[in-house]
Amino acid sequence: MLRCFFCFLFLCDFVRATDALPSWNDSASKKAIIAFVRKVTAEGTADYVPVPERIAVFDNDGALWPENPVPFQLAYALDVLKQRTSTDSKLAADPMVQAANSGDFAKLLEGAHHDGLMQIIALTHAGMTTDEFKASVEGWLKTAKHPRFEKGYDQLTYQPMQEVLSYLRANGFKTYIVSGGGADFMRVWSERVYGIPPEQVVGSSSRTKFELRENGPALVKTLEHLFVDDKEGKPVGIHQFIGRRPIACFGNSDGDKAMLEYTTVNNPRPSFGLIVHHTDAQREYAYDKAPKSSGKLIEALSDAPVRGWSVVDMEKDWNLVWAK
Amino acid sequence: MLRCFFCFLFLCDFVRATDALPSWNDSASKKAIIAFVRKVTAEGTADYVPVPERIAVFDNDGALWPENPVPFQLAYALDVLKQRTSTDSKLAADPMVQAANSGDFAKLLEGAHHDGLMQIIALTHAGMTTDEFKASVEGWLKTAKHPRFEKGYDQLTYQPMQEVLSYLRANGFKTYIVSGGGADFMRVWSERVYGIPPEQVVGSSSRTKFELRENGPALVKTLEHLFVDDKEGKPVGIHQFIGRRPIACFGNSDGDKAMLEYTTVNNPRPSFGLIVHHTDAQREYAYDKAPKSSGKLIEALSDAPVRGWSVVDMEKDWNLVWAK
Repeated sequence: MLRCFFCFLFLCDFVRATDALPSWNDSASKKAIIAFVRKVTAEGTADYVPVPERIAVFDNDGALWPENPVPFQLAYALDVLKQRTSTDSKLAADPMVQAANSGDFAKLLEGAHHDGLMQIIALTHAGMTTDEFKASVEGWLKTAKHPRFEKGYDQLTYQPMQEVLSYLRANGFKTYIVSGGGADFMRVWSERVYGIPPEQVVGSSSRTKFELRENGPALVKTLEHLFVDDKEGKPVGIHQFIGRRPIACFGNSDGDKAMLEYTTVNNPRPSFGLIVHHTDAQREYAYDKAPKSSGKLIEALSDAPVRGWSVVDMEKDWNLVWAK
Repeated sequence: MLRCFFCFLFLCDFVRATDALPSWNDSASKKAIIAFVRKVTAEGTADYVPVPERIAVFDNDGALWPENPVPFQLAYALDVLKQRTSTDSKLAADPMVQAANSGDFAKLLEGAHHDGLMQIIALTHAGMTTDEFKASVEGWLKTAKHPRFEKGYDQLTYQPMQEVLSYLRANGFKTYIVSGGGADFMRVWSERVYGIPPEQVVGSSSRTKFELRENGPALVKTLEHLFVDDKEGKPVGIHQFIGRRPIACFGNSDGDKAMLEYTTVNNPRPSFGLIVHHTDAQREYAYDKAPKSSGKLIEALSDAPVRGWSVVDMEKDWNLVWAK
């Protein structure tokens, strides 16, 4: 009997050791992820996908880390702006800067091209060299804390999604971020935080300008040819940067609908789509229809059953939220 | 004595077997490539470069394959245009089309933005889906022959440069194409021809438009937000697509000067720059100062000694030109 008990313990250990997704409860979404990976890696079958074609794309804000109370890059921009306005009265008098500093994001988003937000980004990002911008983001990450969780922003990633990233990579997938966030912002920390190198980060961007200065080459950030890597922009960004269709796509909002479609609709290869549904007010946030800042999830959620996309119920499907 | 002779033969075989660059004569450029790779891969030294940072960038036209009598993508566009004008009299009456069909490239390059060339590209590329464009390029490669060498264009790559690509990859480098050619054009065959996957091809591009059609998603080529990946555009493209500075750069014209500078000037890592100088009229072409179509090499060649860039004398340094 005692022997049986030890056998049981050993079996538990074994199951745990071979479970690539231990922070996932035994949910339909977990089963779907594993079934898909087993299918495309089964050699000698019609569903087998050669390694170079195993491209998986992940949204970032709301899919790999939170996007509340505001997307973290906006938190960065607001912090930088506050710092600057404290010593620059002319800047402080700018109506858009005042809107930003008082949290009036509705005003920033007015107009066809979110003119206010663009102005804020221009004030905080453009004109810097890419090296200066990188140093600024690194400095911010060292000191800024999330208002609710009181941790550095880069310490707030989802453990279950980190496990999916590792699991896919262990099975020959190349994992990409495809996010509305700025590519230059994410590339500062993506390799350290997610194991995703800069060249596998697709994001919003504008064109830089090359200058050969006395102390070496510099790339100056501008606002020209702005590319917003969101909604229909996501498949456009995927084609531009990766040049082939992904076979797996992970998102959480209507902003990811187009890339979910690009990945899964009539793909000659087997394909997989997944939506993280934020249902966990206690441990994280519960929202979909009318969030304060972003992450609206209405159309993609209603399309999910038709398209065969898995929907993660964060509260029920994840036994752990935060990566350590 | 006989034994010594066999030993000698064995030694020759051994040297050949361990020579990663057998198509290179024992030139200064060959020695420089090998010395650089040994330096950055020597663990425990100050010059050691971690694998993720071993990024090498290669121009394509004139560096990996020829660019004469015209860049091969222009040969493709002209062939497509000829085919279309044979059945479309309105198109045949267009002055720019007539210039293209009669080989008057000077007329195509007139104006600040090479208006004629842009019109030719618009007529042959824009409006197609990326899948249609891919099929068109694949079809062309199967039938078109280079006018002088009478081979398919994709069978005209330089064996010595193919060896450099393999040698670098065997030493942990990620090899990228960074070319003025169109990304969509090169990605059709880059993996098959150079072992460089689509996601490691940086080229000229314009924005596509996403459409979810009845038979699935489509990306339609447009001419909006044209990005010309040449001259100062090359470091801009490298930053946008790769997000870190390369440590090795291989080019052949003034169009590569900026990326050579970006790679080698004040790079905190050891770095390497190389220029292929076309000096071989008999086996390939000899040109630099005033080529018909592209490939002007004046400034970069004069900067080479100051910058420490290696210059390949194609006639003297390569014992073989064409890859089999």
